[in-house]
Amino acid sequence: MAAPALARCVARPGVLPLGARPQAWGRAARLPPGPPPAQRRAFSNSKVLVELDESAGVATMKFKSPPVNSLSLDFLTEFCISLEKLENDRACRGVILTSAVPKIFSSGLDITEMCGKSTEHYAEFWRAVQEMWLRLYSSNMVTVAAVNGSSPAGGCLIALTCDYRIMAENPKFSIGLNEAQLGIVAPFWFKDTFVSVVGHRVAERSLQLGSLHSAPEAHRIGLVDELVPEEKLKERATAVMQQWLALPDHARQLTKTMMRKAVLDRLVAHREEDVQNFISFISKESIQKSLRMYMEMLKKKKS
Amino acid sequence: MAAPALARCVARPGVLPLGARPQAWGRAARLPPGPPPAQRRAFSNSKVLVELDESAGVATMKFKSPPVNSLSLDFLTEFCISLEKLENDRACRGVILTSAVPKIFSSGLDITEMCGKSTEHYAEFWRAVQEMWLRLYSSNMVTVAAVNGSSPAGGCLIALTCDYRIMAENPKFSIGLNEAQLGIVAPFWFKDTFVSVVGHRVAERSLQLGSLHSAPEAHRIGLVDELVPEEKLKERATAVMQQWLALPDHARQLTKTMMRKAVLDRLVAHREEDVQNFISFISKESIQKSLRMYMEMLKKKKS
Amino acid sequence: MAAPALARCVARPGVLPLGARPQAWGRAARLPPGPPPAQRRAFSNSKVLVELDESAGVATMKFKSPPVNSLSLDFLTEFCISLEKLENDRACRGVILTSAVPKIFSSGLDITEMCGKSTEHYAEFWRAVQEMWLRLYSSNMVTVAAVNGSSPAGGCLIALTCDYRIMAENPKFSIGLNEAQLGIVAPFWFKDTFVSVVGHRVAERSLQLGSLHSAPEAHRIGLVDELVPEEKLKERATAVMQQWLALPDHARQLTKTMMRKAVLDRLVAHREEDVQNFISFISKESIQKSLRMYMEMLKKKKS
Repeated sequence: MAAPALARCVARPGVLPLGARPQAWGRAARLPPGPPPAQRRAFSNSKVLVELDESAGVATMKFKSPPVNSLSLDFLTEFCISLEKLENDRACRGVILTSAVPKIFSSGLDITEMCGKSTEHYAEFWRAVQEMWLRLYSSNMVTVAAVNGSSPAGGCLIALTCDYRIMAENPKFSIGLNEAQLGIVAPFWFKDTFVSVVGHRVAERSLQLGSLHSAPEAHRIGLVDELVPEEKLKERATAVMQQWLALPDHARQLTKTMMRKAVLDRLVAHREEDVQNFISFISKESIQKSLRMYMEMLKKKKS
Repeated sequence: MAAPALARCVARPGVLPLGARPQAWGRAARLPPGPPPAQRRAFSNSKVLVELDESAGVATMKFKSPPVNSLSLDFLTEFCISLEKLENDRACRGVILTSAVPKIFSSGLDITEMCGKSTEHYAEFWRAVQEMWLRLYSSNMVTVAAVNGSSPAGGCLIALTCDYRIMAENPKFSIGLNEAQLGIVAPFWFKDTFVSVVGHRVAERSLQLGSLHSAPEAHRIGLVDELVPEEKLKERATAVMQQWLALPDHARQLTKTMMRKAVLDRLVAHREEDVQNFISFISKESIQKSLRMYMEMLKKKKS
Repeated sequence: MAAPALARCVARPGVLPLGARPQAWGRAARLPPGPPPAQRRAFSNSKVLVELDESAGVATMKFKSPPVNSLSLDFLTEFCISLEKLENDRACRGVILTSAVPKIFSSGLDITEMCGKSTEHYAEFWRAVQEMWLRLYSSNMVTVAAVNGSSPAGGCLIALTCDYRIMAENPKFSIGLNEAQLGIVAPFWFKDTFVSVVGHRVAERSLQLGSLHSAPEAHRIGLVDELVPEEKLKERATAVMQQWLALPDHARQLTKTMMRKAVLDRLVAHREEDVQNFISFISKESIQKSLRMYMEMLKKKKS
């Protein structure tokens, strides 16, 4: 499925296909030559189910990577290619992100990708995380997160990156950038995205405490825009989408760009530096050790 | 009435009279020479009624340009000259902005000024819009908006630009930067002013949807500071003004400058660029067409 | 008590002991040589009582400078040295700031230090105010303000500079940056700290009006995080501290730095300029006169 999407993509100025130099995102002409392109990855279309309702112009991307929709390199690659296909499909003006796995929206970055791997692997993985965020945050489509389960760390980032967030009002579901709880630090662009949604003070407190907010609390602090009973989530997401699609695309897109450009530009300007920071941080023995311990704990929980 | 105001103005360093090079606002000495000065416009004092209560040190500027107080070039010119006169009148420390037209505060920029006119006209009009905002946002006086009717787009901008906003609690009155609804985009300095008042997230959502908020909703999101019954609006505006005027002028003015300087400087630094952007956007046939259709619709409504 | 603290401090890269060139804070290697170091001041340990609970890893700094805990040069010097000692004490991970004087947390900067003194004295005093803020805002420790009394101006700044603010719910206690009421202007870094906590709009209105907010209002606008009955303040501060200390120090500290770096850097970059601004402002005869009148008024109140 990738080829036609990529072909169409080439025709769209300013957007590079996956596999092209990712650090040149959106600024191909102005940046000095970067490192050689990451190798094209094979991918299956099995982790993100895409359904497009052509009459409504709305697609649904359902995360289906049990047990917890963790953001592996495969998941991220498939996510980006699927998103790009929709981005370049004139029949699609909006996309709803949700989960096909009960009780979990996404558990965030896949720790196995960050543990005991090569420097090259860390770099490739981190560029895929950046790519996912860059494409979703700058999407020309209306993006609505229908958060139908818990959503820590990178899962929360996906929701924050959308235009609108609706969460199932189940108080057992929680959401937040809880990186500090694991002894790691949310990257600056996670932080920037968070501050844009909840403001500086709420972000400072929540990030320092690594808070996971229950659905009601997430609504109270503005992390999600509204709560609905879980069985109404799909219906409500569709209604919200219709409201946003009632606006002329061009004016809405230019407005979105105006609001998000400063934050997007910041990562684009520091993308390679951010990759190197990630590599040097994650390669530390102390960090590797705590990630291994964390994985052990998760394994024990399961068994 | 213009002559004495302009004469007084010349004596005030850093503020240029209308008719001088507007793009050099506040930075006369540092900028390269701009285009030749716009020609002095004749103007009547008929669209903005000014009453000055010298004992209180408070003026009221009442918009009286039926049917909807739209911001035409004449209105803007008269507004700026009136404001400047008050600014330079030592007997005046504060100004209340309100409407003399029932049910409408101001309907925003006059579409007839943007439709089927020459490039020169567009430039002159846009500089007048900028000038209005620059003078009002940086005013040394206390500025209170008594919003006694609906206030879309540019009308909302005027309210946002004041120090304090009181709105009649009539739920039929609405306010918001609804440009996206018309297929156009609010300029960056409209956006900056809005973000400063309601925060990034509320602004992002409201601007993308081109929302017009009912008075109660506008209060809830912080777009206006308080609601009062319409018959108490004048009285309450006067009381708020007294509260603000209880502060020493100098300290209050320096504090205001500190809070607003970054946003003001941004337009000053990009003023001509912003004019050119406006001209090239508004000159597009697609934009002209949708403005013509919008005007046709308004005419049909009236008849 | 100073010597061992300073000795330990030298071993910590990037943090200079008091008495070293304060304008080079955190950037010793990069800045051009500054003015000669301020002379080491003798100090007593009488204005700030420090108690360290080594088992909990938590210190309490109690302001004990009656009648109103005003921030004199002696107080600030002692505060900074005490804070630095704790900062360098591995047994201490968090500090609770509170008052030993009934009904007052701190009344803010000591006006006698700003009235009728030499330029050199003004410079030394202002550098001490900056130093206090720089050290507290960038502290590696968890900092909790237990605001057990009124806290105007510089007192409010101390609270704003902490990680978390709990206030006694006594409606007679008030807090705010009320500088404008005295005819002076809060420095830009007071403003930046305030905006980071309450947002731009609330800060703009509160600073222009020089508002002192009652405890309930301070809570409503987010100036303090929670209110508790006065007799529960200590207990609650201890519980909050435990919650924050449950996080791994390193991740929490890096997150805090990420959130606060831009605001810290701004003062570091403009530190000497800010000192000169203060001197030239405070040396004005009009300002000296209003400060003298203010002190006369306070004296009359007392007698």
